[in-house]
Amino acid sequence: MPTAQDGFFEYLAGLDCSQLKVYGQPEGTVVFPRVPVMRLEGPLLVCQLLETTLLNACNYASLMATNAARFRIAAGPDKTLLEFGLRRAQGPDGAMSASRYSYLGGFDGTSNVAAAAAMGIVPRGTHAHSFVSAHESFADLSTRMLGEVDLLGAALGYRKEMAYASPSDSELAAFVAFAQAFPERFLALVDTYDTLASGMPNFICVALALTLQCGYKPLGVRLDSGDLAYLSKEARKLLKEADAKYGTQLAACTIVASNSINEAVLHALDDQAHEIDTFGIGTNLVTCQAQPALGMVYKLVEIKGKPRMKISQEISKVTIPAAKEVFRLLGSEHVPLLDLIVRAGETRPAVGKRMLCRHPFDEKKRCFVTPTAVLPLLGLVWLGAGAKVSEADAADAAACSGGSTSALQAGQAGREQDLRSPPPTMQATRSYVAAQLALLREDHLRAVNPTPYKVSVTSELYHYIHDLWLSEVPIPELA
Amino acid sequence: MPTAQDGFFEYLAGLDCSQLKVYGQPEGTVVFPRVPVMRLEGPLLVCQLLETTLLNACNYASLMATNAARFRIAAGPDKTLLEFGLRRAQGPDGAMSASRYSYLGGFDGTSNVAAAAAMGIVPRGTHAHSFVSAHESFADLSTRMLGEVDLLGAALGYRKEMAYASPSDSELAAFVAFAQAFPERFLALVDTYDTLASGMPNFICVALALTLQCGYKPLGVRLDSGDLAYLSKEARKLLKEADAKYGTQLAACTIVASNSINEAVLHALDDQAHEIDTFGIGTNLVTCQAQPALGMVYKLVEIKGKPRMKISQEISKVTIPAAKEVFRLLGSEHVPLLDLIVRAGETRPAVGKRMLCRHPFDEKKRCFVTPTAVLPLLGLVWLGAGAKVSEADAADAAACSGGSTSALQAGQAGREQDLRSPPPTMQATRSYVAAQLALLREDHLRAVNPTPYKVSVTSELYHYIHDLWLSEVPIPELA
Repeated sequence: MPTAQDGFFEYLAGLDCSQLKVYGQPEGTVVFPRVPVMRLEGPLLVCQLLETTLLNACNYASLMATNAARFRIAAGPDKTLLEFGLRRAQGPDGAMSASRYSYLGGFDGTSNVAAAAAMGIVPRGTHAHSFVSAHESFADLSTRMLGEVDLLGAALGYRKEMAYASPSDSELAAFVAFAQAFPERFLALVDTYDTLASGMPNFICVALALTLQCGYKPLGVRLDSGDLAYLSKEARKLLKEADAKYGTQLAACTIVASNSINEAVLHALDDQAHEIDTFGIGTNLVTCQAQPALGMVYKLVEIKGKPRMKISQEISKVTIPAAKEVFRLLGSEHVPLLDLIVRAGETRPAVGKRMLCRHPFDEKKRCFVTPTAVLPLLGLVWLGAGAKVSEADAADAAACSGGSTSALQAGQAGREQDLRSPPPTMQATRSYVAAQLALLREDHLRAVNPTPYKVSVTSELYHYIHDLWLSEVPIPELA
Repeated sequence: MPTAQDGFFEYLAGLDCSQLKVYGQPEGTVVFPRVPVMRLEGPLLVCQLLETTLLNACNYASLMATNAARFRIAAGPDKTLLEFGLRRAQGPDGAMSASRYSYLGGFDGTSNVAAAAAMGIVPRGTHAHSFVSAHESFADLSTRMLGEVDLLGAALGYRKEMAYASPSDSELAAFVAFAQAFPERFLALVDTYDTLASGMPNFICVALALTLQCGYKPLGVRLDSGDLAYLSKEARKLLKEADAKYGTQLAACTIVASNSINEAVLHALDDQAHEIDTFGIGTNLVTCQAQPALGMVYKLVEIKGKPRMKISQEISKVTIPAAKEVFRLLGSEHVPLLDLIVRAGETRPAVGKRMLCRHPFDEKKRCFVTPTAVLPLLGLVWLGAGAKVSEADAADAAACSGGSTSALQAGQAGREQDLRSPPPTMQATRSYVAAQLALLREDHLRAVNPTPYKVSVTSELYHYIHDLWLSEVPIPELA
């Protein structure tokens, strides 16, 4: 049963975005609560139809990149982080988004081969437990040899010399088979039977044979269960013992760890002086365990030049009315001091000019700022054929200036997509994210109880909001 | 840099699923921990390549349907449940999965129009806050009329007669505009300014005019903020007041509620005798807030007729070795008593035959069961052209029998997809889920501390597992 007239559907069919202007922050910009990440100007109905599409496109993407960045901060800059989330994401497309935005947030690779191929990310992973358990004995090997060397014989020789007590033969068969297929990429999953009693000894035997008999450099091991801090330290000790005996450098092998790792686990491992080089993180990364949804909203703030305001009893749900611009004000050494929201058309902040900045709702919270640099955050990213560029638009397109040189360059790279030029590469955006985070004060990035970053409004906008509020919200009548 | 030989890629390119057999439970079957939902038989490499694809396809789907079913149980059978999660799901495809599986789990409609169109689900939603805030005064109305009636004038007349204190004119303008466009679908979002002081009075004025002057039946209101239990009760009171004065039946209007609803909120609302008829649930439904990931795994259990077992220090991670079949044993009134895992080829359970059923790992947990019906859960769903049907396969295809008649029919519907016949419709699967849940004992479905449903193994399989364990796991040497 039709619930609207035919004319309405014809009207919908004729709609396009030619009257639309979209302002956005460059992808990867660090954003704070209340700061608009996007501003649309155009016919009400077109803007309204885009609401859910844009929220769907931005919410999970931003959440995922943020979560990945938090994992990166927790792991530290020297660790390798691999995204292993394909099997737990919201279907295949959810998994592709997870791979993309975890990479942008600071991950180094993904086990999702389709994502890696599509996005130019490095595909990374290890063999499966089933590869080990599919082997039963040395008889499963089609050959003992790697090139001219009896790889199995050599490995068994080292096993004897090292006097390892009870490693599994089926596991050794699997490791030999893997080393035969990938002698240059020998990375073994060592926890199928017993990490320290079987997996590590078997790895070391094959690694010694690869190194000393065949001249290859083994890559490392992966731990996927148990006490990862303890096991990684013990694993490193076993590698050093072998090095001491044979003059090898197995201790330089990579130790990969996985198994329900989350941000808290990364911090805890750090406290225990773990020996892990690479983390494979899946479930808790892609489902954003700590906060599975990001609540960005899309609100009508101005219509026909008149401000509109979403009123709510909950102050966190009140939106700031009117078309707005946002500027990041930088201090000495280009450290961001605060983000300033300005009503479009108001006087903009300027370098060297002292300015009162106010909390949008709390009259007691205010400060003066004299910025050393002013970075406009919203730039024109879509200009419909029937929409017009204002002088302010043109000024912004020219004015985007960043903090550090790299942030500036990355910012410019972000800006070059304005007016439909091609978007920056994922690598450029990833560097931009890292540069942005590097500029922030450490206390803003702290995992627990971070100092809130200031998001302010001009004094002019402050009064504008409060006058509007008082005029729109009736005073309740208690009876 | 290539990391494998060309021959390997050629080999991959020639692979297909012609040697593969897949056994699966009908979609929508209620499953319990440790019970295999799928069993694959075929070449190791083909089975291995399917691991992540199948996990990706099953994990989120099952989690979502389960979450939806929990919401349905919490809300009760009489409430309407609408999925509102598109903006918070993992991208557009994640959202489509969310819509599909929340429908299968017991939801009635979705606000995702694309999903509704693609899947034959009823699209459901309300107008936005911005529709209200886009209106500023009565001057925004292109006409006061609906047909021959001065709708605005009539509404203003009721406002005066009801002596409502301070409702917003801009909100009334929006409601009149909406009623003019959709007189038969008038459902108003009433919390833009103040639910009880403005939204409800404005709704009632327009609803009275629609009913008494125009002969339409208004649908209802939506609450999207505040204390939903309190507001719904007060809203119903206001509707009754109007009915008392005008002899209308506005109290029969639907009250829709949304705003961060989760399972706990549904239970809490119930305790407060709320007056809500329909729930719109988004974020906490589609991101599965209570448990954002389901950890189904895919394990090698048998190779060349020999059992393989995933050993782990954590008992919850130990998998049961060997190819297995699963039977649901039903008791009186066809209530499921337990699921019994049987090694493929072992003696199967039979109706009327007393049988010892054991916990797979705890020797003290065991019971005798004499089933009144035996429902095989795994059926052949894919048979490659090069794979063969066994006698057992043929018997299963014929033997699928359910608990109640409806579960049986739904089960058969599920079975008809075997051997590549078309899958059941979403509506049939949704009914199958409901029928399955209706058969379960209430204490198994309880939200808090449910009684665990028994998943057992035969005595034969019990000893088989334990003998294999003891032979595979070395005894640690403490020193």
